[in-house]
Amino acid sequence: MFDLTGKHVCYVADCGGIALETSKILMTKNIAKLAILQSVENPQAIAQLQSIKPSTQIFFWTYDVTMAREEMKQYFDEVMVQMDYIDVLINGATLCDENNIAATINTNLTGMMNTVATVLPYMDRKMGGSGGLIVNVTSVIGLDPSPVFCAYSASKFGVIGFTRSLADPLYYSQNGVAVMAVCCGPTRVFVDRELKAFLEYGQSFADRLRHAPCQPTSVCGQNIVTAIEKSENGQIWIADKGGLELVKLHWYWHMADQFLNYMQSNDEDDRD
Amino acid sequence: MFDLTGKHVCYVADCGGIALETSKILMTKNIAKLAILQSVENPQAIAQLQSIKPSTQIFFWTYDVTMAREEMKQYFDEVMVQMDYIDVLINGATLCDENNIAATINTNLTGMMNTVATVLPYMDRKMGGSGGLIVNVTSVIGLDPSPVFCAYSASKFGVIGFTRSLADPLYYSQNGVAVMAVCCGPTRVFVDRELKAFLEYGQSFADRLRHAPCQPTSVCGQNIVTAIEKSENGQIWIADKGGLELVKLHWYWHMADQFLNYMQSNDEDDRD
Repeated sequence: MFDLTGKHVCYVADCGGIALETSKILMTKNIAKLAILQSVENPQAIAQLQSIKPSTQIFFWTYDVTMAREEMKQYFDEVMVQMDYIDVLINGATLCDENNIAATINTNLTGMMNTVATVLPYMDRKMGGSGGLIVNVTSVIGLDPSPVFCAYSASKFGVIGFTRSLADPLYYSQNGVAVMAVCCGPTRVFVDRELKAFLEYGQSFADRLRHAPCQPTSVCGQNIVTAIEKSENGQIWIADKGGLELVKLHWYWHMADQFLNYMQSNDEDDRD
Repeated sequence: MFDLTGKHVCYVADCGGIALETSKILMTKNIAKLAILQSVENPQAIAQLQSIKPSTQIFFWTYDVTMAREEMKQYFDEVMVQMDYIDVLINGATLCDENNIAATINTNLTGMMNTVATVLPYMDRKMGGSGGLIVNVTSVIGLDPSPVFCAYSASKFGVIGFTRSLADPLYYSQNGVAVMAVCCGPTRVFVDRELKAFLEYGQSFADRLRHAPCQPTSVCGQNIVTAIEKSENGQIWIADKGGLELVKLHWYWHMADQFLNYMQSNDEDDRD
């Protein structure tokens, strides 16, 4: 269980659909500070959030998740002047543009990983931080393939691989920073976009999405916060159809007993 | 079963370790043309390959898999002057640099996807091509997370997501281009590198890799070709410990029956 009371939360996402709904719920949880890092200014959303809980300090900055790693370091040094520290980093920046593979991957995967690598030292118990939680808000098509959004699915599969890798006890036992992901099922705000399929053969399928049955975005946002509160390191959740389900993670690589035994042994001699 | 006899094969990878060993086996399969697209010139490797089968035409070009999509189109227009057409595209370019997340993702994931998107129209049955096969040579840590190589694992998870998505019958039934992946277990040529962990806490684990038991690279190359010959669209193979195993793919998203029923229905009315 993760208690949000008094926490300093940094949310990287454009505060439209899911991120706005999630932030609304966060504002009811007595958090101390909420930093919203978004690609465009959205003062209406900030005002709406502030009205929910006037005593929570909200900061907002424009943030380009695709900026170079070196710039990011300077950027967060400035963020930290206001935030003091970060307990919870939520990564929700997302793009689905199958005609621009590089932009989709840079936003959803490289940008998220660079953000984590930049913020982690501030949270790291061994580096003067207090530990905390990293939450990757991602998609069910990071777990299962998509027949139409091949680049988007690839980026979201990457998010799952990164989340599961960084959650390894080797890291968590040292830095005290838990890592989890919530995979959202389709929401109205997603399917209402003008979505292109990776190849034109998939376009009729993409077009059909517009009228597909979807969960309400607000319910999805509520479930993301519930997953955060229930979270344990390494967990992957599915928030879909208005529900929340803990994913039982599958392992594929069963052939490598000799290799894994060697890597898990405590033999420090490194014998061949 | 996929018969390599007489085929035009394009292999994107630096012709060291696995790619060289795989190419040696390909040269014994009576292929008609082999194009090798590598980041640095390697005339010794080309000469070695040519000596195996003098009657197979080998072409080689230097290729930067991270080039922009627009350049790539021009590049392959020139490749096609020599190759006439491509039956088999093998993607094997790979980088494991945890200190450079962007470079690792750009090489392993974005570069591979841009290459596929560029070459696919030449192979596409609906666009005058003859169909064919796309083979992504990737890693077992694209299936299971890695405790040390978080960025590399993310990139390789992405490769699996892309492979499975593009293999959807929606695409394959139209373009006739099958897509598969072979996930290699550790080889000596991989673990002998100077490998850095994503966080320093993982470095002792990374250092231990150097003496880990590994399969011979030549056996892995042989098994990659065997997987190609056995391939069916959408298959993922593991080539590890000198063996070859077809992966039973797992699906996670069980909550979406109503959504999936809608998407799979033949109702063209798009009713809400």
